[in-house]
Amino acid sequence: MENTSLAGVKALVFDTFGTVVDWRGSITQEGEAWGKARGLQIDWARFADRWRAGYAPSMDKVRKGQLPWTKLDDLHRALLEDLLKEFHIEGLTEAEKDHWNHVWHRLKPWPDSVAGLTRLKKKYLIAPLSNGNVALLTNMAKNSGLPWDAILGAELARHYKPDREVYLSAADFLGVKVPEVMMVAAHMGDLRAARELGLRTGFIYRPNEYGPTRQADKANPGDFDVVSTSMLDLASKMGA
Amino acid sequence: MENTSLAGVKALVFDTFGTVVDWRGSITQEGEAWGKARGLQIDWARFADRWRAGYAPSMDKVRKGQLPWTKLDDLHRALLEDLLKEFHIEGLTEAEKDHWNHVWHRLKPWPDSVAGLTRLKKKYLIAPLSNGNVALLTNMAKNSGLPWDAILGAELARHYKPDREVYLSAADFLGVKVPEVMMVAAHMGDLRAARELGLRTGFIYRPNEYGPTRQADKANPGDFDVVSTSMLDLASKMGA
Repeated sequence: MENTSLAGVKALVFDTFGTVVDWRGSITQEGEAWGKARGLQIDWARFADRWRAGYAPSMDKVRKGQLPWTKLDDLHRALLEDLLKEFHIEGLTEAEKDHWNHVWHRLKPWPDSVAGLTRLKKKYLIAPLSNGNVALLTNMAKNSGLPWDAILGAELARHYKPDREVYLSAADFLGVKVPEVMMVAAHMGDLRAARELGLRTGFIYRPNEYGPTRQADKANPGDFDVVSTSMLDLASKMGA
Repeated sequence: MENTSLAGVKALVFDTFGTVVDWRGSITQEGEAWGKARGLQIDWARFADRWRAGYAPSMDKVRKGQLPWTKLDDLHRALLEDLLKEFHIEGLTEAEKDHWNHVWHRLKPWPDSVAGLTRLKKKYLIAPLSNGNVALLTNMAKNSGLPWDAILGAELARHYKPDREVYLSAADFLGVKVPEVMMVAAHMGDLRAARELGLRTGFIYRPNEYGPTRQADKANPGDFDVVSTSMLDLASKMGA
C-alpha cells in the first residue's frame, strides 16, 4: 500500500454514476439503437447530458426540503417527461417510458470496474454509496456482475449526497468506525464532503465521463488518500 | 413450477436464522472449540438455546416501544452479558466479548443453502429479509459465500418482524409490487405475517433447527404457495 495510514481501512464504498459505470456512453448507446429502430434523428449524447444536467437540481429540491423524500427513479422519471418534450419524442406508452427510465438500471461498467472490484472484495467490504435507489443499484449490479457485498446509499439514509447523513450511514450500517471507511469517487466534491466527516478518500480518474468536450475532475497525487487511474490501479494501491 | 400463480414472482426474500443458516449448530461448534482451549465444561448447545431464547423478548421490547430502535447486534450483546453470568464464564475482555457476540456474523449455512441460492439468483432477485442488522448479514454472506443481490431487513425498516413495515419494505426497496415478492422461511409465523400483507410464501422444512428434542415447524403441502424440504427443492419448485 502506498500509504501506511490506510492499514485500518475495512470497507470501500463507491460513487457509481461516472465512477463505476459509464452513464453517458450507456444511455447514448441504448438511445442510438432505440432511435434507429424508430427512425428518429436525435443527438443521444446530448440527450444523456441533458438528463444528467437535471440530476443535481432535482436532488437539491429534496436536500433543501422543497420536496419530501423522493427516490432517484422518481426524480429521473419527472426529468424524463420534460426531456421527451425537449427532444420531440412523442407517443410513448407508460410501459415504454418506464423502460426508458430504467436505462439507469442498465448502465454498463467501465471496462476495469468488475475486475477491480472483484480484487478489492477479497480484502475489503465493498458497497455502492450512491444517490441511486436500492432497486436501481441492485438491478445494475445484477445486469453487470458488480460483486457488491451490500447495497448502500441515499435511499437508506433518506438524504442525498453530499448530505452528511449518507456518508455516516455507511459506517453505521457496516458496523465499522468512520475512518475505517474509504469513499471512492471520480468527483472531488464527493470526496471532499466525505473527508470532512473523517472518511478516507480514494479518487479514480475517469477522463471520458462527460465526453470529449467537458473536462472530468483530475486530482493530483496527494490530493486524497489514494489517487488512481482505474479500479485496477486502486486495487493495486490498496494492496488487493 | 408447481403453481402457475407464482409466474409473477420477481424477488425472493429470506428469513436467515434457521432458514438459511444453522445458528444452533454453528454456535455450539464454535463454543466447543473455544471452551476446550480454556478447559471449560459447558453445554454449548444449551448456551446457544439460551441465547436464542432471549431473542424474541428483546425484539418485542423494541416492537412495543419499551426500547428505542436498537440493532440486533446490540440486543445480542446485552443478552450475552446475562448469559456469561448464567454459565459462569468469567474474565472476558471487551474484545473477547465482541468476538463472541459476532459469532452471529459467522453462522454457517445449511449444506444446501449456497447451491440453492445460486440457482435461484439466476432467475430471481434474492435478498435476506432478516431481523439481523446489515453488518451481521453482510459479514455472514461474505464469510460463507451467500450470493445475495442486496441486503434487506429489519434495520432498514427500523422495525422487527413480524411488524408489517419490514415485509412491505422489501417490495419498496426492490421496486416491485408486493405480490411479486415471496417470503421464504422455515417458520410458519413469519410466513403467515407476510401472507397477510399480500406477499407470496415459501416454506423450507429445517428439522434440525432446534436440535433433537424440540420439534421444528412442519408445513403440509398447500399450507403456503410453496412447501419445500431444502433450498434446492425450493429452487426446483420455482423453476430455477
